[in-house]
Amino acid sequence: MTAVPKTQKAVVFYKNGGPLKYETIPVPVPKANEILIHVLYSGVCHTDLHAWRGDWALPTKLPLVGGHEGAGIVVAKGSEVKNFEIGDYAGIKWLYSCCMGCEYCVQGAEPNCPDGEYSGYSHDGSFQQYATADATQAAHISKDAKMDNVAPILCAGVTTYKALKTAELRPGQWVAISGAGGGLGSMAVQYAVAMGLRVLAIDGGAAKGDLVRKLGAEAYVDFTKSKDVVKEVQKITHGGAHGVINVSVSEQAINQSMEYVRILGKIVLVGMPAHAKITTDVFSHVFKCDQIRGSCVGNREDTAEALDFFDRGLISSPVKVVGLSELEEVFKLMQEGQVVGRYVLDTSR
Amino acid sequence: MTAVPKTQKAVVFYKNGGPLKYETIPVPVPKANEILIHVLYSGVCHTDLHAWRGDWALPTKLPLVGGHEGAGIVVAKGSEVKNFEIGDYAGIKWLYSCCMGCEYCVQGAEPNCPDGEYSGYSHDGSFQQYATADATQAAHISKDAKMDNVAPILCAGVTTYKALKTAELRPGQWVAISGAGGGLGSMAVQYAVAMGLRVLAIDGGAAKGDLVRKLGAEAYVDFTKSKDVVKEVQKITHGGAHGVINVSVSEQAINQSMEYVRILGKIVLVGMPAHAKITTDVFSHVFKCDQIRGSCVGNREDTAEALDFFDRGLISSPVKVVGLSELEEVFKLMQEGQVVGRYVLDTSR
Amino acid sequence: MTAVPKTQKAVVFYKNGGPLKYETIPVPVPKANEILIHVLYSGVCHTDLHAWRGDWALPTKLPLVGGHEGAGIVVAKGSEVKNFEIGDYAGIKWLYSCCMGCEYCVQGAEPNCPDGEYSGYSHDGSFQQYATADATQAAHISKDAKMDNVAPILCAGVTTYKALKTAELRPGQWVAISGAGGGLGSMAVQYAVAMGLRVLAIDGGAAKGDLVRKLGAEAYVDFTKSKDVVKEVQKITHGGAHGVINVSVSEQAINQSMEYVRILGKIVLVGMPAHAKITTDVFSHVFKCDQIRGSCVGNREDTAEALDFFDRGLISSPVKVVGLSELEEVFKLMQEGQVVGRYVLDTSR
Amino acid sequence: MTAVPKTQKAVVFYKNGGPLKYETIPVPVPKANEILIHVLYSGVCHTDLHAWRGDWALPTKLPLVGGHEGAGIVVAKGSEVKNFEIGDYAGIKWLYSCCMGCEYCVQGAEPNCPDGEYSGYSHDGSFQQYATADATQAAHISKDAKMDNVAPILCAGVTTYKALKTAELRPGQWVAISGAGGGLGSMAVQYAVAMGLRVLAIDGGAAKGDLVRKLGAEAYVDFTKSKDVVKEVQKITHGGAHGVINVSVSEQAINQSMEYVRILGKIVLVGMPAHAKITTDVFSHVFKCDQIRGSCVGNREDTAEALDFFDRGLISSPVKVVGLSELEEVFKLMQEGQVVGRYVLDTSR
Repeated sequence: MTAVPKTQKAVVFYKNGGPLKYETIPVPVPKANEILIHVLYSGVCHTDLHAWRGDWALPTKLPLVGGHEGAGIVVAKGSEVKNFEIGDYAGIKWLYSCCMGCEYCVQGAEPNCPDGEYSGYSHDGSFQQYATADATQAAHISKDAKMDNVAPILCAGVTTYKALKTAELRPGQWVAISGAGGGLGSMAVQYAVAMGLRVLAIDGGAAKGDLVRKLGAEAYVDFTKSKDVVKEVQKITHGGAHGVINVSVSEQAINQSMEYVRILGKIVLVGMPAHAKITTDVFSHVFKCDQIRGSCVGNREDTAEALDFFDRGLISSPVKVVGLSELEEVFKLMQEGQVVGRYVLDTSR
Repeated sequence: MTAVPKTQKAVVFYKNGGPLKYETIPVPVPKANEILIHVLYSGVCHTDLHAWRGDWALPTKLPLVGGHEGAGIVVAKGSEVKNFEIGDYAGIKWLYSCCMGCEYCVQGAEPNCPDGEYSGYSHDGSFQQYATADATQAAHISKDAKMDNVAPILCAGVTTYKALKTAELRPGQWVAISGAGGGLGSMAVQYAVAMGLRVLAIDGGAAKGDLVRKLGAEAYVDFTKSKDVVKEVQKITHGGAHGVINVSVSEQAINQSMEYVRILGKIVLVGMPAHAKITTDVFSHVFKCDQIRGSCVGNREDTAEALDFFDRGLISSPVKVVGLSELEEVFKLMQEGQVVGRYVLDTSR
Repeated sequence: MTAVPKTQKAVVFYKNGGPLKYETIPVPVPKANEILIHVLYSGVCHTDLHAWRGDWALPTKLPLVGGHEGAGIVVAKGSEVKNFEIGDYAGIKWLYSCCMGCEYCVQGAEPNCPDGEYSGYSHDGSFQQYATADATQAAHISKDAKMDNVAPILCAGVTTYKALKTAELRPGQWVAISGAGGGLGSMAVQYAVAMGLRVLAIDGGAAKGDLVRKLGAEAYVDFTKSKDVVKEVQKITHGGAHGVINVSVSEQAINQSMEYVRILGKIVLVGMPAHAKITTDVFSHVFKCDQIRGSCVGNREDTAEALDFFDRGLISSPVKVVGLSELEEVFKLMQEGQVVGRYVLDTSR
Repeated sequence: MTAVPKTQKAVVFYKNGGPLKYETIPVPVPKANEILIHVLYSGVCHTDLHAWRGDWALPTKLPLVGGHEGAGIVVAKGSEVKNFEIGDYAGIKWLYSCCMGCEYCVQGAEPNCPDGEYSGYSHDGSFQQYATADATQAAHISKDAKMDNVAPILCAGVTTYKALKTAELRPGQWVAISGAGGGLGSMAVQYAVAMGLRVLAIDGGAAKGDLVRKLGAEAYVDFTKSKDVVKEVQKITHGGAHGVINVSVSEQAINQSMEYVRILGKIVLVGMPAHAKITTDVFSHVFKCDQIRGSCVGNREDTAEALDFFDRGLISSPVKVVGLSELEEVFKLMQEGQVVGRYVLDTSR
C-alpha cells in the first residue's frame, strides 16, 4: 500500500446550482470511527442532481462534494474502527451515519433515523479520490467484485431490493415494475427474478421491452402503445399484480398502479418525484384490502444481501464509465432525460 | 322447540329509496347448506341505509329485506348442514356466502371473494323474524351471550377488530382512533385496549371524550377544540401514532392521519365514505416508510375471535332497543346524524 | 364424454397386510358435494404402504382402496358442486375432506382438522379407475398438465413445497435438504431453487449427488464419504444452514440437523418415521435461538401454488409408469428400499 | 454531582467457586465508548451463580466482579459517547457489548453475536459500586423509576418479555407458563397479561397459586396436586395452550409442554438447565405442526419495550433488598432453592 497523498482531485460546488469545479482539495483525515476510502469508481444518481440543485426541502452542506455510490479500497482508519482492515474493499452508501440508538435504529430502520447524515449531501461524498465513511455504515465489498459494476449496487441496487422486500411477495407471484427499463427498474427486474417472482415490466418503447425481457421479465407492457395499461396488466396477471414497484416518477403511473394491483396487493412507493401526489379512492382500498407502502433505500442487512446477489452473478450492472472530471456533462444528460443505464465515474481522470 | 310458522313480520322495500313496509311475508325455507334462524335482534348499520337508498355502485336485490347484524336461534336446517344443530345460537353477518374455493377464499380472505353474496343486500337479511343463512358463513354465538348486545358485534365489532389486526401493532404501541366516539369507534377503543394497545381517541366534543376515556382511551384529542390535531397527536405519542384506525368518514380527517402517523406507522382505512379520496404526498410516504392499508369486515376466524372477546366481558356493547316496525324512524335519525351508539331492532314488535 | 361405466378395476385389500386384489368393483356414485374422477394415473407414496400394513395408530377403513395422488378427469358431480365442470382435470389429495368450520380450518390449517378424512385411508382412494373426491378439497389441474407427471405433485410436491414455506426463508439463504436424492427430496430441491434459495443437498452416494446437482443444488454432502457432516455443512454455508428440510426419516440425520443449523435457523420436520424421536439439548436451542417446526402436507392454497410451479415448467417430475395391476410389486420394491424416483400407476392396465 | 471516588466496595472472586470477597477495589475508568455507572442496586440472577461456580462451558474472566442487573446513575463517560449524559439513569444488562456489524447484529439479534461480551461474566459487572458499561448496549432508565424495583427488569423482565414475543401469539390466546410462580415466571405472567393474553400458570403449591392469580393468571394448575397436568391444561384451554413459556428448568416439565401445546402451537424454551434434553416424538410434531422455539434474553428494542411496560405501572417487581456485602448468603439460599421472588443488592452496604 502506497502512502496516502495529502491532496486529491474532486468535484466541488460552493453554492447550490453553482459551478461544478474539478479541483485539487485536501485528502480528509478519518475520525475515530471512520475509514478513509480510496474511491475508484462512483455511480451518479438522481439524488446527486437534487443535492447540487438544492431543490429538496433539506438543505445540503456547502461547499459540497457529492456522490453516494462509491466503491474503493480502505487506505486508513480511525482508532475505534474494528470492522475494517487496510486493504479491504469498501463502499460509500447514501446513509453516511445514524445514531444507532434511537427507536428506529434499534429496530434496524437505520435510514429512518432522525439524526442520519447523508453521503454527498450533509457529508462530503464519493465524487473525490479519497473519502471518509463511518465504519459502522460503510459497506463491505467482496474482493472478487468488479469495482465499476458494483458501485451502482450501493444505492440503486439496495433501494430496489429493499422495495421488493417491502412488497412481501411469495415466490411465484406477479410483480409489476413501473419504469422497468430505467436504471433502478433494470435492477428491480433482476432482483425480482432472483427472488422467484414473475415480472411484468412496464415502460415505453421497444428498446426497453427488449432490455427487460433479456433481464428476465416474463411480460412487457409498453405504455406508448397499450390502449389500456390497467386492463392489459390485469389480463396478463389474471386479476392484477400481487405487488407493484413504482420506480417511475410519473404521478399518473403511480395512480394507475392503484388500479391494476390485485385484490390484497401491495403497491410500493420508492421513487421520490418532487411534489407528486397520490390521489386515490378510499372506497376502493377498503374494498380491495390493498396496501400502499413507502420504501426508502435499505439498512446494513439489506445492503449485504443486495451485494450478495451481485456477488453470486445474479445481477448484471452494466455501466458507462467516464472520468470524474466529466460529471458536469453527465448531469446535463440526466437533466435532458437522455441517460440510458448508469453512469459511473472513474476518479483517476 | 315450537313449530316454525309459515309467515312472519318483516320490513321490505320494493325499490331503492321507496317505502319501508312492515308487513307479513312467507318464512323462507333453508336450502341444503342453509340454516333458518329465528332472528331475535338485529343491529342497524350505515350499510343498511346505503342498501335502501341504492347509492353504491353495486345494485341490491329487489324487493329486499335488509339487515346484516342478526342474532337468533337455529330453528331448521338443510340436509347438508353439519356445523349447526337446532337450538344453537347463530348470527347473520354481512357476508352471507362466498365460493370458498377461489384464490381469496383459500387464503381466508373470504370478504374479498368475487362471488360473495351479502346479507341484507343481495340476499334477504335480518330485518325479519326468520332468515336463512349459509351455514358455512353463519356465526356461532355462545349460549351465554345477551342477544341484543351481541348483535352489533357481528358487523361493527368484527370490522373494527379486523382493522386493528390489519394494523399489526404490538402491545404497548399507540393507536389513534379517528372517530372514536361513534358506533364503530367505541368498539375499536375497547378492542384496542383488550389487545394491549395504548389508545389515543380523536373525536369532537366533551361527551365523546368522557365516553372514550371510560372505555379505556388513555388520551383524547377534541378536534373541535384542538389548535393543531397533528401536533397534539405527535406530542402525546412522542412522535406520532404507530397505527391509525380511520373509522371517521371525513376526508379531511383521513388525510390528516397521514401526517400524524409515526415513521414506519400504519394507517388503516376502514370507513367507506362515498366518493372520498386520499390526497397525499409521495415523497412523505417514501421518506417515512409508512403504509396505508385497506381493511374490510373480517372472515370467519376474525368473527370467532371478536365474539370471544365479547364473551369474555371485555367489550361492552350498549344498545338502544326499538321494535323492528320502527326501522324507518331509525333510518331517519341516522340520516340526520343524530344516532349516538347502536340501534338494535327487536323483531317481536 | 362417454358414459360412466357401472364397474371398474381397482386394487382392494380386505384386511391390513392382507392380499392386494386387482379386481372388478362398482363405480362409486358421487354425493351432493362430490365429484367422480376418472383416475388416469396415481402416484404411490410411502403412506400407502403404511395404510396397507396398518402400522400407524390411526386405523384404516376396511376393505380399502388406497392411493392419494390421483390425476384424472371429472366425469360426474353431485348436485351441490359448483367449482368443477364435467371434463375438468382434477386431482385426489391426501386430505379427502375436512369440516371447513373448526378453528383450524378457518385459519387455513385444513390438514390439521380433527374431523379430516383421508383419501386411500378412511375414504377409498386413487388405486381405482373411478374415485369420488370431495369437491371442496379436490385439486384443480391445468388442461396442459401431463397427467402421469402431475400425479406426484399432489402429495410429494405439495408436502415439500409446504415444508419450504414453513421454513420462512428469504431468497438467497441456504437451505439444507436432508434426504435430497429421494422422491420427496428431489421435489424439495427443485421447489427451493424456484423460490430463490441456495440448496445444500445431503444424501448418500455419487448417483444421488449427480441427480441433485442436475436439479439445481449448489452443494452436495455425501454422508457415506463425509468425515463430519456437521462441519462440512457449516463450512459450505459459512456458519450453518438458515433452514433444514428433513425429508430423510433417519433419526440420526434429524438430530444432526439440530447441530448444523445456523444461529436463528429453522429445522423443519416433515418425514414421519414411526417411533423416531428428537433428542436435543435445551441449552443449545436457547443459546442459538433456533426453531424446530413441524409441517404436514399442505392446504388448498399450497396445493394450487405447488401445481402452479409445476405448470410453469419449474418442477420436473420424472416417473416410472407401471400398470395399476402391478401395485403389489411396487410395494415390494418400496419395502426393500429399492425405489429410485416415483412410481406412477396407469389405471388402464 | 460529587466527584467520582478512586476506590469502591465490590464483591470479587479470584477462582470459580472460590471465596466471595467483599473488598475495596479501584473504580474503573470508562473507555471511549463506555459510561461509568454508579450502581445503586443490582439484582441477583441464577446466571450469577453459574458464573461464580464456573459450571458452564464458557469460561469466565478471573478475577471477576459478577452481576448483570445493575441500576444506577451515569457519573462519567468516554469521549465517543453521545447517547448518555452525566446524571442520566442507566442499566447494566447481560449483554455488555457486541460487534454491531455481524449478520446477527445487523438484524437486531445482538444477543446472538459471536463476539458478544457479558456483564458479570467476561466483563466486570454490577456487584460493585461503580461499573463500566458499553454505551451502545447500556439501558436507558426513566428518571421516574424506582431503582431497586427496576433492576430485575433488566434481565428477568427482558428475558420473559422476549420469550413472549418469540411465541408470536395474538391477544386473546392462551399462554401456559410453566414455572409461573418463580422470579422469571411472575414477570412472564404480568407481561403476558399486559399483552392481552390469557394466562394459565403452572407451578407447585397453593401459595404460588395465590401469587399468580393476583398477578392476573386466569387459571392455575398445581402440578403437586393435579392427577394429569396435560389433560388439565387441555381442558381449561379447550384443546391446548396456543403457546408455552418454559421458565421452569425441569426436563420433565419441558417434555410435558410438548404434549399440552395446542395444534399449531408454539413452545418457547427460555430457561437454561444444564445438561437438560428435549426428548420428543417426530411424528407428533409433524402431525400437530407445532413449533419449538429457543429464546435468549432480548436486544435493545426488547429492553426498551420491557422497561416501558414497567414505567407504565403494568409490571410490579417485588424485591427483597439486602446489602451487597451479603451476596454470599444470597447465593447460599439460591443453591438451597429457598429464594422466593428476587433478591436485590444495595451497593451502599
